[in-house]
Parts: sequence; structure tokens; C-alpha cells
Amino acid sequence: MSSPPQADWLIHNSLVLTLEPGRAPISDGYVAVAGGKIAAVGQAKAPEELPPSLTRLDAGGSVVMPGLVNTHCHAAMVWFRGLADDLALQEWLTKFIFPAEASWLNPERVYWGTLLAAAEMIRAGITTVADGYFYENEVRRALAAAGLRAVAAQGVVDFPAPGVPDPRDNLKAAAEFIDSGGAPPFDLITSTLFCHSAYTCGPETLEQAKDLTRRRNLPFFIHLAETRREVRELRDKTGLKPAFYLDRLGLLDERTVIVHGVWLEPDEQDLLADRGVKVSHCPESNLKLAAGVAPVPELLGRGVAVGLGTDGAASNNNLDLWGEMSLAARLHKVWRRDPTVLPAAQAAALATREGARVLGLEEKIGTLAPGKDADLIVVDLHRPHLTPMFDPFSHLVYAGGPHDVLHVMVGGRWLLQNRQFTTLDWPAVRSRIQAESRDLAAFCQKRPFFDP
Amino acid sequence: MSSPPQADWLIHNSLVLTLEPGRAPISDGYVAVAGGKIAAVGQAKAPEELPPSLTRLDAGGSVVMPGLVNTHCHAAMVWFRGLADDLALQEWLTKFIFPAEASWLNPERVYWGTLLAAAEMIRAGITTVADGYFYENEVRRALAAAGLRAVAAQGVVDFPAPGVPDPRDNLKAAAEFIDSGGAPPFDLITSTLFCHSAYTCGPETLEQAKDLTRRRNLPFFIHLAETRREVRELRDKTGLKPAFYLDRLGLLDERTVIVHGVWLEPDEQDLLADRGVKVSHCPESNLKLAAGVAPVPELLGRGVAVGLGTDGAASNNNLDLWGEMSLAARLHKVWRRDPTVLPAAQAAALATREGARVLGLEEKIGTLAPGKDADLIVVDLHRPHLTPMFDPFSHLVYAGGPHDVLHVMVGGRWLLQNRQFTTLDWPAVRSRIQAESRDLAAFCQKRPFFDP
Repeated sequence: MSSPPQADWLIHNSLVLTLEPGRAPISDGYVAVAGGKIAAVGQAKAPEELPPSLTRLDAGGSVVMPGLVNTHCHAAMVWFRGLADDLALQEWLTKFIFPAEASWLNPERVYWGTLLAAAEMIRAGITTVADGYFYENEVRRALAAAGLRAVAAQGVVDFPAPGVPDPRDNLKAAAEFIDSGGAPPFDLITSTLFCHSAYTCGPETLEQAKDLTRRRNLPFFIHLAETRREVRELRDKTGLKPAFYLDRLGLLDERTVIVHGVWLEPDEQDLLADRGVKVSHCPESNLKLAAGVAPVPELLGRGVAVGLGTDGAASNNNLDLWGEMSLAARLHKVWRRDPTVLPAAQAAALATREGARVLGLEEKIGTLAPGKDADLIVVDLHRPHLTPMFDPFSHLVYAGGPHDVLHVMVGGRWLLQNRQFTTLDWPAVRSRIQAESRDLAAFCQKRPFFDP
Repeated sequence: MSSPPQADWLIHNSLVLTLEPGRAPISDGYVAVAGGKIAAVGQAKAPEELPPSLTRLDAGGSVVMPGLVNTHCHAAMVWFRGLADDLALQEWLTKFIFPAEASWLNPERVYWGTLLAAAEMIRAGITTVADGYFYENEVRRALAAAGLRAVAAQGVVDFPAPGVPDPRDNLKAAAEFIDSGGAPPFDLITSTLFCHSAYTCGPETLEQAKDLTRRRNLPFFIHLAETRREVRELRDKTGLKPAFYLDRLGLLDERTVIVHGVWLEPDEQDLLADRGVKVSHCPESNLKLAAGVAPVPELLGRGVAVGLGTDGAASNNNLDLWGEMSLAARLHKVWRRDPTVLPAAQAAALATREGARVLGLEEKIGTLAPGKDADLIVVDLHRPHLTPMFDPFSHLVYAGGPHDVLHVMVGGRWLLQNRQFTTLDWPAVRSRIQAESRDLAAFCQKRPFFDP
């Protein structure tokens, strides 16, 4: 065996959680990074056992693990966080969100809003995000500037939308978006499309959109079975349960990602498993909007790949995948009345390895293994709320939080070091957002503060 | 009107949330503290409008609000956090928790464990905690050293317990504990007792314990209706639903606090409302143990005072009341299929004002009002995940977290300044805990890391 090449970075003195199936945590562990990829993962009981490297980071006993994978987000909606909460879905959408999107949002605001979202996600240890929105070229530009890995998906609906006033252009706009991606500075970004739903896209649009992504071997996203009302109306219209409706249109295959899937019934779950369809689970959003609880243990039991998503900050209201891990691990226990459901290590896998699988990125990211891209985070386990430490997965899922992330690396490049941004100019982002948010508040004729 | 006396501290340039009913947030607000009490709360658009003070803290636009009130905790159980998770309740208790409590725990470890818990709670903005455990004199000593306000309750069970080997001594031990409190250094601590449950305490113990607390006008705590099994067994034995059983024993009055109350039925909820009984709601623990979802909107609708509790870290696994606020606000929406249930401002009130009411401390704490004790926290709202800000209650409940707390004051004394402890020697606590946790792991013959 030849000696290893010199690494660019060596992160050592750490507890390495590779998230590779069956691999135990590595104490006194190290991860070597070279050329943007993971060169080696190993154990060194003494300094002389460490491989050579240009630069070293002593993790001080912290955890090193794969970056978190957010499988569903509408990043730019951070603008609307806390603008209106605790309302019925229709009132929230029609009085606040739709008017603001239609008349207040513009490409520049999508760009700056996405930078704001990127700041929050980087600080929370998210290294990959699947985003779907309008003006997605601006989203892609902002995510590239922030250095995040992403699947950026142009939103498709059959009615006038921001940036696509004539819905007959919706697939043309999506194709142009897709075809303008790929090369630097977008080399960490997969460009695709996001059909909003079966109630906002007609069957022809759905079929053509899927065809467009299938020809390019791209993931195809769709919100499905989020609310009972949606399911009822679709059945009234088509006579079919949502998953069977999509199947009739030929939409279900291994590159299709169903977002929410709250009301999927057992025969639909079987169908998704047969077709290799993936699911993005967004429990905080589902609870806040009172949508329901997705049948996640049932899907996992059928071998369906499930990842976690934050959804947009208007309905969550945060882009914190730690909260989703914690809630997923707890919620399905009480829902099934079984405290052994979704144990901590499995919840951690959903937020990393399985999220990568949902996005079709499992060859590149999701675990720490030689040859994969170097997307990793360093998590401080020495704080009061994480002391003492018996099981790192338990701490990550049930006690840790976004604030425990110290360092974040994507493709071998640091995005956060000692909680300081290295790619983003946060004061500039913040002052821009603050100034324009006053305008947004005026636009919405903001309701008064709620009386406690 | 005479001019106001000089304050010890003036916290200014803040958004003050008094949590007084009907009082709107005060922008450009200040809080003046004198002699450990709140001297004034007001608005100053210009520096010359600020009242005189010895010392000033410019909050830089952050929120100032009442400290959080944790109405249920077993602080010293932080020792057992992450030691065993995702197990059936009986296995968890009998294989891990009971043996460790019986043979590994000792007074000194309860003291140090409580210091560790205090460190976590202070960093999370908790200023008052209601604790129930064994060796409660050590708990009280540690909480006093940390400077926290507390209701410390000596655990009472009708079987041999740590520190009380003969259960016939359980009420004597509790009375001694109570009678040794009150004076400095315990002047911020109410000393009382905690009857573990109706299945671990016989009717005579319950009656006598309640009598003991009633004569001293102290709160009386009891876990009740946490699991369906507990309810079924109690009904098999007594023929009564849990609340009616306690009522038959004369236990229900305005100083009784029922912890959990997951399976309280409508007629029991009516009874609690009639008797003025209080309830401590611990949703994260209830989910993780798959106990169920407490009927909180129903209790609130009947006018029952409900506070939030973290429970112990062995079953939660954190002492973070922010997570409880967020989960309470979300969970009851999906449970009732109504997104308007438990709006953000109400959830924030449960964590502060209503928690104080549950503990019978509403005259002293829970809101920011002149004459009340100065228990307050300063929360940074300028971070990426809290930008922009339209509604401070929305941000506190749905987006904020324990790490956003900058400063913590109890009774006019700072416990945390710029996230640095002023009363606790964290390195000393941490090294002590780390060393002894190895011994605990060996004691438990720790199961191997779970395979992800």
C-alpha cells in the first residue's frame, strides 16, 4: 500500500460518526480532506499515527459527522417568518402569503432572502438544501454565493406566478432554469423543477414536467397528501387516492420525491415502496399548520427512503433540522404509543444519510467515507446540556441544537469556523433585510401584536 | 409625585415584554431594578427620559422578559441523560434508572448533578424551577449556590428510597426537610414535598402529606394520569378515575399541582377547575416516553392554570423550556386539527406568568411589574434565525432557543452575563461530572452504541 497523499485539512481529536451503516463511532478519530473530498477516516491514539496534512484542526473531542441534509425548503420565505401565525391555512395563505409573494416579492428580494436563509442553515449545520420556489435562479445564485450544496428546483404551477406571469410558459421557464445550471459557479447545485401540487398543476403539466426531469435524470418534487382537504378534493375529482393518481400519470419512480405525505394510506405506501419513490418528512411544519402526522414508521418499515425537511420559515418557523430530528424521534413514539419507535440513531440517519438518498446524492454525500465529497460538521459536545455523554446519537437528537455546531465544511471549503461565517457578510445581509422588512410590514398592514 | 429612587440596574434600549395581561410590547423600553425588585418598567425615546441608576445595561434592542418558570424537574437526573433511551418504560426504569438511583446515587452526586442542571437551566433562561427528588436537601443547597429561585420538594414514596431506607420515615424526612428551609441561604427557595404518585404512595401517606403541606400553606405535587396503564390500575383498585380518587382523599385544592395529567377526562378536568388545582404540562417527556398528549386546550378552556415543565433529563433529554413552548404550541394544533389553538403569545405566557401561578408565586414573579422580584432575561433577537422580526412572541415560541439568552437575573442578581456564568464555576462542575460519569457508565455496564 502506498502512503496516503498529503491532505489539505486534517480534523483530529474527535469522535467521528461516519453514519455509514454498521460503523461504530470512532473515538480519537480523524477525517482527512483532500481536493474537496474525504481522503481518509480513521483512528489515531497518538499524534504520530495521524496522516500528513497541510492544515490541522484539533476538534477538542467534539463530534465530526456528515453535514445535515434539508430535503425540503422554500428558503426565501424567511422574509415572512412570524408575519402571521396561528391562523387557519386558507386565511394565512390568502391574506398574507399569496399577496406578499404576488406583489412584494421580486428577484432581488428572493436573492437576499435566500442569503438570510443560508446564514441560518449554515449556523445550524445544514450543508445541503433542496429548495423549491419562484425566481429560483436567484435562489441558486445566493446558495452558490453562500457555498452551500443544493438541489434548486424552479416552482411550477398552472396559474400566474412570480416571474412567470403566463402559466403556459411555466415548463419553458423551468427548462431554461435547468439548462442554465450545472457549470461553475453552480457546480455544487443540481438544478431541477418542483411541481407545487396535484391541485395547482393539471395532469398535462405534471406529465410533461416529469418527462422533462426524467430525460435529464433529475429529481422531481411535488407536495402531496399534506392535508385531508387536499386528499378529499383530489379523490372527488379523479376518483383516486393521491399516490394512485400520480401513478396513473406515470409520475412515480426512483427520482420522484413526495413532500409531506401526511395522509398516505397503506396501499399508497406499498405503491411508493414498489416504485422506489422517496419522501420528505417535515414534522414541525405539519404540526404548526395542523396538517397531521405522516406515517413515517410505516414508510420506513416498507423500505421507503425518508429524509427530513424544515419546509419554509413562514410555516415552521425555523430552518433548524435539529428540531425536526428531535420532533420526528418523539412524535412517532406517541403517535404509535411505542417508545421504541424511531430511536435516536435512526433519526440522525434520516437527517444525513437518508436525506442524501432522498435527493439522489447518496454517492456523493450523507456519510463520511473516503471518496465522498467533504461535507461535514463539527459539533461541540462539551456544553452543560450535553454533559456527561454516554451515547452521541442520543445527545444529537434529544439534547443538542443548532447552536452546538462549531464548524461547517462543504466540498472541502469552510463555511463556518468557530461559528463565524467565512463566505457570508452577515452584517450586510442583516442591514439589507432589516431595511426592507419595514417595507414588508407596511405592505401587509401588519396586524397588531397579539395580547398575551 | 416624588422622583423615582436611584436604581441598582437599568436595562434599557430593549423591547420589553412584560407578560402582564393586555400589556403591549414596549419598544425603546427599560426595566429598572432596585433592592432585588423591579422598580419601574417604561419607555424612553431619548436617553434623558431614562430614570437614574447606578449601573446601566444597554440591551442593544434585545428583548427583556420575565425569566422562564420550569414547573417540573428532577434536576439531578441530568446524570442519566442519554444513558438509555428508546426503551419501553418498565425496561428503562427497572434496568437503568432504579438500579442507578438505588446504588450509585448519593448525596454528593445529587448536589453535583443539580449544579450541572442549574448550569443548563441558567443558560436556557430558566429563573425558577420546581424540583422533586431524593436527597432534596442537596438539591436545595446546589440551587441556592447557583442563585436560582426554586420550589424544592422532597420526594415521598411508600418504599425504600435513596436517603430514606425505611418508608415509615418518609413524611418525617419530608417535614425535617421543610422545616430546615426558609432562612438564608434558602430565601429564594420554597421547601415542600412531592408525593411521587398514587401508585407509589398509599392513601394514608397521601392524606398526611397533603395535610402537612396544607398546614404550612405549601404547594403539594403529584404525578398523575401520566400513562393509560397507571389509570387502568388505579381504577381497578379504587373504582375511581385518578382525579376523583385524589378528591376522595381530600387532596385537591388550589395548592395542589398535578404533573402530566395526560389522561384526565372531561369530568376530571371539570373537577380540577372547580377545586382550583394547577397542572404542569411536560410535552417533550410525554412524547419521548409515548405516554400521550395532555388535554391542555381543554384545561385552559376551563380556566385551569397550566405551566410548562421539562421533567428530568433522563426522560426528556434536556432542561430547555423553549423546546416545551414550541412543542406545546405545535402539538395541540395537530392533536385538535386546528392551527389556531395555543397561539404563540399564550405559549409564552404558559412558560412565564402561568408557570408562576401554578407554583403559587404569581405575586412575586412571572411578569415584569413594579414591586415584583427582578427575575428577568435578555434575549438576543438579532441573529439570522430571528431576522426580520414582526412579532416577538412568534419568534420566542417558534424560532428562538435557549442559546438566544444573553443575560439572566434572579432577584436582582445576575446569574449569566453575555452567556458567562457569574455564580457557577462551570469548569469545576464539568470536570467533576466527567470523572464520575465514567464510574456511572461502568456501573450500568453500558449497552454498546446503537448501530445507525
